[in-house]
Amino acid sequence: MTTTADYLVEGMTCGHCVMSVTEELTALEGVQHVEVDLRPGAASTVTVSSDAPIDPDAVRAAVGEAGYSLSDPRP
Amino acid sequence: MTTTADYLVEGMTCGHCVMSVTEELTALEGVQHVEVDLRPGAASTVTVSSDAPIDPDAVRAAVGEAGYSLSDPRP
Repeated sequence: MTTTADYLVEGMTCGHCVMSVTEELTALEGVQHVEVDLRPGAASTVTVSSDAPIDPDAVRAAVGEAGYSLSDPRP
Repeated sequence: MTTTADYLVEGMTCGHCVMSVTEELTALEGVQHVEVDLRPGAASTVTVSSDAPIDPDAVRAAVGEAGYSLSDPRP
């Protein structure tokens, strides 16, 4: 079974940014696939597919490791 | 003696782009130092310092190798 989750990531501007984020997220245990809808100048949508739900804190940490940050959800 | 030359490079948006261009230009024979004034959304100024003048065609090729292009000078 595959679980997918979408995250909004700030500050990604080019293909190198996509590579960095994809590399960090793919390294998380259980992650099968990462897809990025790059939107330079806005938040990019990053879709993480995994065989079990991934802890959002782990995703936040991996995105931070790549040098970017998750968009905080608005209340 | 050090020669410096400025080039305008299109399409650079982030630190990864700076790294790519710097790596390619630093690999050119005679280049001592590369400095980039990053301007996302506009042309970035790339300053190449070398011990002798560098062939602009070699600079153009190196920038292209990194995935970017020189701004053509306007007449």
